[in-house]
Amino acid sequence: MGDQIGEIVNGKLIFIPFREFLRLINSDLSRPNKLKLLSSLCRVNVLYMVANAGSGHLGSSFSSMEVMSLMLSEMHTKKNHDETLSVFFSSKGHDAPALYSVMIGLGILDFSFIHQLRRLNGLPGHPDIHTPGIVTNTGSLGMGVSKAKGMIIADRIKKISKNYYVLTGDGELQEGQFWESLISAKNFKMGELTVIIDHNKLQSDTFVNKVSDLGDLEAKLASFGWKVYRVDGNDIEALLEVVEEGKKVTNQPKVIIADTIKGKGVSFMEHSSLDSDVEYYKFHSGAPNPDNYGKAALELLNAAIVEFESNSLGELAYEEINRIGMSSVVIGKQEKLVQAYSEALILETEKNNNIVALDADLILDTGLIPFKDRFPDRFIECGIAEQDMVSIAGGMALKGMLPIVHSFSCFLSSRPNEQMYNNSTEKTKIIYVGSLSGLLPAGPGHSHQAVRDIASISSIPGLIVVEPSNELETKRFVEWAIYQSKSSVYIRLVSVPIELPYRVEDLQLEFGRGIFVKKGVDLLIISYGPIFLRNAYIAALEIEEKFKISVGVLNIPWLNQIDEFWVSKNINQFKNIVVIDNHYYEGGLGQRIGAIFNKLKIDKQITCICIDSIPNSGQPEEVLAYHKMDVVSIVNRISKILLNS
Amino acid sequence: MGDQIGEIVNGKLIFIPFREFLRLINSDLSRPNKLKLLSSLCRVNVLYMVANAGSGHLGSSFSSMEVMSLMLSEMHTKKNHDETLSVFFSSKGHDAPALYSVMIGLGILDFSFIHQLRRLNGLPGHPDIHTPGIVTNTGSLGMGVSKAKGMIIADRIKKISKNYYVLTGDGELQEGQFWESLISAKNFKMGELTVIIDHNKLQSDTFVNKVSDLGDLEAKLASFGWKVYRVDGNDIEALLEVVEEGKKVTNQPKVIIADTIKGKGVSFMEHSSLDSDVEYYKFHSGAPNPDNYGKAALELLNAAIVEFESNSLGELAYEEINRIGMSSVVIGKQEKLVQAYSEALILETEKNNNIVALDADLILDTGLIPFKDRFPDRFIECGIAEQDMVSIAGGMALKGMLPIVHSFSCFLSSRPNEQMYNNSTEKTKIIYVGSLSGLLPAGPGHSHQAVRDIASISSIPGLIVVEPSNELETKRFVEWAIYQSKSSVYIRLVSVPIELPYRVEDLQLEFGRGIFVKKGVDLLIISYGPIFLRNAYIAALEIEEKFKISVGVLNIPWLNQIDEFWVSKNINQFKNIVVIDNHYYEGGLGQRIGAIFNKLKIDKQITCICIDSIPNSGQPEEVLAYHKMDVVSIVNRISKILLNS
Repeated sequence: MGDQIGEIVNGKLIFIPFREFLRLINSDLSRPNKLKLLSSLCRVNVLYMVANAGSGHLGSSFSSMEVMSLMLSEMHTKKNHDETLSVFFSSKGHDAPALYSVMIGLGILDFSFIHQLRRLNGLPGHPDIHTPGIVTNTGSLGMGVSKAKGMIIADRIKKISKNYYVLTGDGELQEGQFWESLISAKNFKMGELTVIIDHNKLQSDTFVNKVSDLGDLEAKLASFGWKVYRVDGNDIEALLEVVEEGKKVTNQPKVIIADTIKGKGVSFMEHSSLDSDVEYYKFHSGAPNPDNYGKAALELLNAAIVEFESNSLGELAYEEINRIGMSSVVIGKQEKLVQAYSEALILETEKNNNIVALDADLILDTGLIPFKDRFPDRFIECGIAEQDMVSIAGGMALKGMLPIVHSFSCFLSSRPNEQMYNNSTEKTKIIYVGSLSGLLPAGPGHSHQAVRDIASISSIPGLIVVEPSNELETKRFVEWAIYQSKSSVYIRLVSVPIELPYRVEDLQLEFGRGIFVKKGVDLLIISYGPIFLRNAYIAALEIEEKFKISVGVLNIPWLNQIDEFWVSKNINQFKNIVVIDNHYYEGGLGQRIGAIFNKLKIDKQITCICIDSIPNSGQPEEVLAYHKMDVVSIVNRISKILLNS
Repeated sequence: MGDQIGEIVNGKLIFIPFREFLRLINSDLSRPNKLKLLSSLCRVNVLYMVANAGSGHLGSSFSSMEVMSLMLSEMHTKKNHDETLSVFFSSKGHDAPALYSVMIGLGILDFSFIHQLRRLNGLPGHPDIHTPGIVTNTGSLGMGVSKAKGMIIADRIKKISKNYYVLTGDGELQEGQFWESLISAKNFKMGELTVIIDHNKLQSDTFVNKVSDLGDLEAKLASFGWKVYRVDGNDIEALLEVVEEGKKVTNQPKVIIADTIKGKGVSFMEHSSLDSDVEYYKFHSGAPNPDNYGKAALELLNAAIVEFESNSLGELAYEEINRIGMSSVVIGKQEKLVQAYSEALILETEKNNNIVALDADLILDTGLIPFKDRFPDRFIECGIAEQDMVSIAGGMALKGMLPIVHSFSCFLSSRPNEQMYNNSTEKTKIIYVGSLSGLLPAGPGHSHQAVRDIASISSIPGLIVVEPSNELETKRFVEWAIYQSKSSVYIRLVSVPIELPYRVEDLQLEFGRGIFVKKGVDLLIISYGPIFLRNAYIAALEIEEKFKISVGVLNIPWLNQIDEFWVSKNINQFKNIVVIDNHYYEGGLGQRIGAIFNKLKIDKQITCICIDSIPNSGQPEEVLAYHKMDVVSIVNRISKILLNS
């Protein structure tokens, strides 16, 4: 589920235009040959889309390409005008570039979308039903089979007969809900349901069998009462055959283990070309660098050209586009919180024998690679199994260890929510570290954008939720969480590196108290985290200029523990107070401070500027603007307050 | 995980005193014989404890009794003075009466605890580490194996060598975390770990294989890389043998499938005496009625007496106690919200073809038996698989159905938290119904007491959280949720029947608006739900008497959607406002209204009376008093406010 931000390719990118897909579809090639060529053309376009977006998942898009081509063409073979015979979707969801490229190639999605991956009003990083042709929202692993079961039960009630095909990853099989969802399908005699496992042998970080060996996968699946098939998942003929074979079994759920090659089609991305001891697979997520893009594009394009010619389709046309990317020029020092966290953790672990770090297949994104290298015996890779991870941490804490549990905030705050509560009732101390917190990056889409995490965890007894806004503050919170906090701590980290427009002074944390980033007198803007404090600061300067008033900016990194006395003492000079939340209003800092002001009888009204809808997917600035959280919008919103006050 | 409230046996109860356990332990019987007799004595005491408590789980306490006797004696065989060679705990946790009875019999727990099941400062309904000898907190299913893994990893780091035995249920195997936790144990080569499955064939509601067939369980477990044993779990010799056999396997996790009989020892409770077509097993949870208690006690006692004699231990002494239970006299009409919900749901389903009800093995507690009988095709039993259930509902909603999803609030608000969010991003409409909400009943303990559920779900986009306080309001909310609400709804139901001290007038719901239960002028008490409104009302009368002021009581059943204008208009006459939350402050109604007052510049301070610690287990009144939520405490707390204002 990793979602690192890759390099951005500026310059020449190539893609296959729609007319070539039309030519293929309208040709008299056999169905298998059409699907083979469709896959080859789509691989070129997947590479284009990810390079153009600046992020996305190449490895599993390539491994699943033949399945995508076959199943989407299957799905869109209409029985009559408005009803399809079968339904297909990907449960893992991060193979969306492959899914989209085939939908675009088949004309299900407008071709212009090819330029719009991970863009506002374009194609979100993970599938969403508001895109035409998308069946269900995926992106957080393990839900797909359950959802298909629900659709099938609904069909049965409505006397509709359709086949459902759900594509899953193999790393995804570590997620408990997958096995949970298998169990009752047998009782339901769900012959309508076929799961296809894109068995490419690698999850985000490394080989699946290094994390959690799938063992005898065929026996395992069969023991759950499913009919099991196994096939070369990059071989269209073989896939077609097994899908047809499966249609004959109508009273039992079926699973096709599709052995595939991660990165299939680009020699240096193919996992089978790697030493099986390789520590980290480099092409799971993130865009290719310019050099890799060029080499990969050439290889994929040449293969497609050769295939077109050998199938008597003549010369394959392609188009070039000159990508003018967003500026990636960095003037000052970027604050990299995950890296700072990683360094601080290592420093403290040198001194503390009780620290163990647990990770759920996001070692790269959570900054734990250096930790694992330094303390291999105190690093526990739990796989994509957040509930198991959090309860493992609970067990370790009972034994006197200090477990530090890592995942993305979107997952960590919700998937193991009950397990965190259970740990809290034992009153042990555990540190949770959620990265990828808040609205940005918005490329992956709402499954990965954590803007309700504070609400969902703040009520866990004894759990203190904090969010640092710069590297130094991150370091201080790591020290504080390890040495000073008596109870459990959740450190909410923004993953996007950002340059701050103000100097970070040496700072000492004071429990529940804020830190003034900018002094002021008339208006106070309160926020937290690097991106939102940055925007608050720049907005403050513009408002000072515009209204000729003095604007303060206050960082409150304590998200559910506030020193009420301190707050009441330090805001009395301000006439207006605005809280900007990288979160929904519900459970956010603004709501909390508003309630505190009421409690303390402070006669100052808090105005909350919060995220107020499901997070949109796109580039950072366009999504900030969409949610009215960019500097321009903040200045406008605060201007209105000032004009009305 | 059911936790229905049983009948209360007032009158003569019997138990085996500690001296008889001592006599057994100090006898020269063989170890197997001692353990057999220990089990027989403990069965008598389990029955006593549950009858005395008024609730508890008999069926699985009896089925697991031999495992408990063996494993606890194993665990407390000391290597030296302070270190045990093995660690044992029950993951399912609701077999706590069996666990406690053996611990008490072996002298690990003070014998006086036998009278203190589900009592304040006694033994909580599910195990908690603050009871001596308890290893970890359980009660919510599926976490045990993960926790043991954590303990083993910690031991390995600390170079300690111990064996861990985790008892699970067989219904519990439907929970995804169980399978999630099995996977990596193989990679970890966890020879220290043995799972014992109390395979009694029944879960809360009915036979496991009717819900989710376990299939070839041995093959299934073996396919996850575990060494599998199978044994008669009520046969001490066989159990002993297999445990010893397992100790020889040191590089692979092991699982013992212990075939047991639910209700073992009491002929009419033994599931094997039941027709396998029986719809509902009656002795999963809840205390026996007086008649059943008498028959069961006689049978268990006689069996123990015979065994004592045939083992030359002479006459078995037992003690009688005259239980003077709490008054169960009901004067007026009790409001039964779950029953009212059930009736309203059936009424609406008659008129609406889109409604389907989903349940997670709590059909009795969620009031769905009449629904299932009336609409068998529109009832989906999902098993103990809340994540699967919620995503199934998501799939059904995408297909135009109106799924109504049921579980206890503690589980429903947390276990499938991310799945609920995923559904919300699809903007479909789903109704969630959580019963057993709030602090009471407090018998089951904190795993089952939902006092943070509002916080954990209120931030789910579009989810409207409501809580009715009487039968009529429940009916109105069912109608409103089905016909009027455009978006998803969570109905938070208190399960404890209660008599209200005021008349419920005919009422029409108005979105976001409160309902005055009692008019007043000087002080306003705001609350929600039957128990807390009842206490608020009685407290209001006492305060009126004490302070000679006029006190209003306002029911606000909208927990995350409040009509701000209405609130501001309707509170101006009150000098003091108190909100009483059946919830933590975090995310509760008091915090929310405080923030609204600040936003609306209302110069009235909200005083919040909330639950402020982990819920304690015990009888309703004693737990209310412990948390200062009984009428006396509320009057005292409000008196202080009035004296200080």
